[in-house]
Amino acid sequence: MILIALSHESNVPLYKQVYKQLTDMIQLGTLLEGDQLPSTRALADQLHVNRTTITRAYEELWATGYLESRSGSYSYVRRRSPLVTANHSNDTNLINWHNIADKTCDELHVDFHHHKLAKCPPGGFDFRTLSPDSRLMPIDEFRKSINHVIKSQGAKLFGYGHASGYYPLRSLVSKQMALHGMAVRAEDVIITNGAQEAISLLVQLLAHSGKKIAIEAPTYSAAIPLFKLSSSKIINIPMTKVGMDLDVLQHHLKKGDMAFVYTIPNFHNPTGITTPQSHREQLIQLCETYHVPLLEDGFEEEMKYMGKQIMPIKSMDTKGIVIYLGTFSKILFPGLRIGWIAAPKACINLLESLKHARHIADDHLKQAALVHFCQQGQFEKHIKRMHRIYRKRMQIALKTLRDQLTNEHIRYTKPLCGYTIWLTINRSNLDEEQVFSYLQKNKILVSPGSHYYSGDHQDLSFRISIAQRNESEVQNGISALCSALNQMLTQ
Amino acid sequence: MILIALSHESNVPLYKQVYKQLTDMIQLGTLLEGDQLPSTRALADQLHVNRTTITRAYEELWATGYLESRSGSYSYVRRRSPLVTANHSNDTNLINWHNIADKTCDELHVDFHHHKLAKCPPGGFDFRTLSPDSRLMPIDEFRKSINHVIKSQGAKLFGYGHASGYYPLRSLVSKQMALHGMAVRAEDVIITNGAQEAISLLVQLLAHSGKKIAIEAPTYSAAIPLFKLSSSKIINIPMTKVGMDLDVLQHHLKKGDMAFVYTIPNFHNPTGITTPQSHREQLIQLCETYHVPLLEDGFEEEMKYMGKQIMPIKSMDTKGIVIYLGTFSKILFPGLRIGWIAAPKACINLLESLKHARHIADDHLKQAALVHFCQQGQFEKHIKRMHRIYRKRMQIALKTLRDQLTNEHIRYTKPLCGYTIWLTINRSNLDEEQVFSYLQKNKILVSPGSHYYSGDHQDLSFRISIAQRNESEVQNGISALCSALNQMLTQ
Repeated sequence: MILIALSHESNVPLYKQVYKQLTDMIQLGTLLEGDQLPSTRALADQLHVNRTTITRAYEELWATGYLESRSGSYSYVRRRSPLVTANHSNDTNLINWHNIADKTCDELHVDFHHHKLAKCPPGGFDFRTLSPDSRLMPIDEFRKSINHVIKSQGAKLFGYGHASGYYPLRSLVSKQMALHGMAVRAEDVIITNGAQEAISLLVQLLAHSGKKIAIEAPTYSAAIPLFKLSSSKIINIPMTKVGMDLDVLQHHLKKGDMAFVYTIPNFHNPTGITTPQSHREQLIQLCETYHVPLLEDGFEEEMKYMGKQIMPIKSMDTKGIVIYLGTFSKILFPGLRIGWIAAPKACINLLESLKHARHIADDHLKQAALVHFCQQGQFEKHIKRMHRIYRKRMQIALKTLRDQLTNEHIRYTKPLCGYTIWLTINRSNLDEEQVFSYLQKNKILVSPGSHYYSGDHQDLSFRISIAQRNESEVQNGISALCSALNQMLTQ
Repeated sequence: MILIALSHESNVPLYKQVYKQLTDMIQLGTLLEGDQLPSTRALADQLHVNRTTITRAYEELWATGYLESRSGSYSYVRRRSPLVTANHSNDTNLINWHNIADKTCDELHVDFHHHKLAKCPPGGFDFRTLSPDSRLMPIDEFRKSINHVIKSQGAKLFGYGHASGYYPLRSLVSKQMALHGMAVRAEDVIITNGAQEAISLLVQLLAHSGKKIAIEAPTYSAAIPLFKLSSSKIINIPMTKVGMDLDVLQHHLKKGDMAFVYTIPNFHNPTGITTPQSHREQLIQLCETYHVPLLEDGFEEEMKYMGKQIMPIKSMDTKGIVIYLGTFSKILFPGLRIGWIAAPKACINLLESLKHARHIADDHLKQAALVHFCQQGQFEKHIKRMHRIYRKRMQIALKTLRDQLTNEHIRYTKPLCGYTIWLTINRSNLDEEQVFSYLQKNKILVSPGSHYYSGDHQDLSFRISIAQRNESEVQNGISALCSALNQMLTQ
C-alpha cells in the first residue's frame, strides 16, 4: 500500500498533493520503474477522496512522464529524464556555439563586445551618441496619439499588420518625401524596423554571392557588419572633401558585378560632409551608365537646419535606380524603430515578401500613432524646434573649435546640419589608441575613426556628436576637448 | 535686366518668390546655361528689397543646383538634371529587379503572392487565420499599461533600447518559463520581433553553407521560406502519429553536418499533434548523442487548456542543447511582435550581436508596457479566460466533427489544446486543388496542406483553425464543412 498523507486545510489542491508525493517517491526510489500503481478507484477509496482527484493526479503523472500507459487500466511507474533545476547551470559545453556559428557572426560578436561603450565618468563630456536629445522628445504628445488611435481603431491595430507597413504611414512618408523634392507613391514605400533593417533587407535581396558592394570609406559604422555578413565583397571608395571619389568608383563599376553603391549624401556619417549638386548628378549618372542600384541613406534628411538645402539624389531619379532609406530615429524617437525604403515598385514587391519571411507582420499600433502625431501638426512643430535648437548648438560647437583649437595639426569638417563633426589629426607619431586614451583621461569621450572603416586606413580621425549635449555642455565640452588636443599635440 | 515681379501681400516669402521666378526662367530657357546673374546688391536695389532676401534666394538656387559658383562674387546659371515630377512613373526598366535579386528571394516573392489570402465571402466560414480572436483582446488594459510606463519612465523608453530586449521583460519571460518547468535565467533570454525573427536569427547564425536543417513534414508554413533562404539543405522528416519519425531523423543525424533540428512538440502546427513524454526524451537524447542543437518552437505553450500538460523538452535540457522559441502572438496580441529565444548564454551572446547588427535597437516602450500588464495580473487573467473559451470552442469543433463527419475516407487529429485541426482525405481520385475549390464554392475557407511541406508529399490534407471563430461560428462552420466533405466524398 502506498502511504500518502493529504491535508484538507492546505491551499494546494488535493490532486497536486497526490501528484507531488508520488513523484517524490519515484525520485527517491521508494517507487521503482515498472512498479504498478493502485487503480484510481482503489487509491480514491483508501484516501477518502473523489475518484476524479486521483484520475487528475495520474493524468499529470502521465503528462510529465512519470507513468507508463500500457494496455489495460493499470498504470506503471516510468523512469523519466531528470528535470533541469534552477540551480543547474545551462552553460555546459556539449556544444561549442562559437565553433558551430557562422564565421562572420562569430567575428561580429567579438567586434560588438569590443565596441561596447564605456560609461562616461561624472563631470565628463560624452560626444559619442548619435541619438536626439531625450530632453527634447515630445513624449506626452505621442502618448496622446497612442491613446487616440487605440480608442478609435481598437483591435485592428493589435492583429497581424501587413509586413509592408500601415498604409496611411506609407502614404504620409511619400508626402514627407515630396517636401524634399522626391516624387514617390505610397506603394513605392515599405516601412522597416529603423533604417538598419532597411539596409539589412537590401543586403539580403541584392548582395548575394559573387557580387560586390561599393561603400564610402569612412562610412556609417553600424552598416559595416551588415555588409560583412553578406556574401559580397566590400569595395571601399575613399572620401574626398566633396564626397566619395567618383573616379575610383567608376574604375570599380567598370569591372561589373556591383550589387549596389551605398552613399550618405547629406551630413555624411561620420564626416558631416554634404555633397554638392554636381557630385550628386555625376554619381547618379555613373550608376545609370552601369545599371547599378544606388542606395541613398537619407538618415538625417529632416535635420537640415542651416539655409542651403541640397535636394536628395532620389529627386533626380528618372530611371528608377535610386533606393532611398529614411528614418524617424534621428529626428524623433530612436526607440520607435520606424524607418522606410522608397524604391521602384518592383523592388518594393521583392522586399515585401522578404520582410514577410523575416517578420510575418509589422507593429501597426505605433505606426498609426505616428500618423496621428504627424496629422496633429506635432511632427512639423517638433522639427522646427529641433532646427532652432541644433542650429544654435552646432554654431557654438564650430565657433568654439575655431576660437580654441589653435594647433595646426588638426582639421575638422564644418557641417551644415546634422549632429556630427569629424576631426582629423595630422601627426605621424600618434596612433588612435593614444589619442583616445588621452582624451578619456581628460574625461572626454569620442568615437574612434577606425570604427567607420571596414578595412585598413591611414587616417587618424575621430567623430564627435553634439546630439545629446545642450548649449552649455557643447560650449564647455568642446572647450575641454580643444585644450586637451592643443596640449596633447604640443607635447 | 531680369524681370521679376514681387507681391508683398503674398504668403510666400519674398526670397522664395525670387527663387521661383528665376528657376522658371532657367527651365523655360529665358536664362541660359552660363548666363551671369546680377550681383545680390544690384538685384536687391532693383527690386527694392533687403539684400539678404536676394542672398537667400541665390543660396537656394545654388543648393538646388541652378547656380554655378565660380571665383569672384558673380553667379552663373547652371543646367541641372531634371527633377522627377509626381506624374513621372518610376517603373522604368533600366534595372530588372527580379534578375538582380537573390534567386531564392525572387522565388519567395512568387510563393508570397501565390499564398495571399482570398477574401472570405459574406456568410462564409473562414478557418484559415491562426491569430487569437480580436474580440477577446484586452486592449484597454494594455492601453492603460502603455500610459503607465510612459508616465513613470518617460524618455528612456524612447531612446535606443538594448537589442537583447528590455531587461525586466527578459526576467519576466524566465519566470513565465519556470511555470512550465523550464529553469532559465533572464540572461539566457533574448527578446525578438515575434517568433519569426527568432527563427530568422537562428537560421542566419547556425544554418550556414554546407549544413543541413531537419524539419518535420509537414511543419509551420512560414518557417519554410526562412529555411529556403538559408544556404543549408532542408531534410524533411515525416510525421508519425506521435511526432517526427525518430528513426529517419537518426539516419540523417548519423551523416553529420546538421545545423539544427526544428520541432513543434505541443499542438504541432499544422497537425495539432502533441508529442508524448517518451518521444521527447528520445528526441533530446538523439540530439545530445549527435551534438546537434534542438530548436523547440513553443509557439502556443500558454494554450494548453485540456488537462494533461506535457512539459517542454527544454525542461529536460541538462546539457544546454535546446534552443526554446516563445511568443506572445498566439495568446495575446500578434501585432505586438514580441517573441523570444531562451538558450545557453554563449548562444544568446552570439544572437545578441547578430540582432544588434540587424536592428541596432529594440522598441522598449511596448516591452515595458507588456511587463506592467503582466505585473498587474492581466496576463494571467487573460490566459484563464482564453482557456475557458477555447476549451469550449475546441470541444464543440471536435464533437461536431465526430457527429457529422460520416465519411470513412477522412480522418482528423484531436488536439488537446491550441487552435488547429488537421484533416486528411484518403481518396486517390482527388487532388488538393479540387478539394480546396469544392470547399471554397461552399464558402468554406481552409489552409491547403501543401503550404506546410517544403518538398514533395503524398498526403491530401488541410488545416482548419478555430482561432477567430466563436462557439456558434465553430458549430455552424464545422457543420457546413462536414456536409460539404460528406457530399464531395460520396460523389
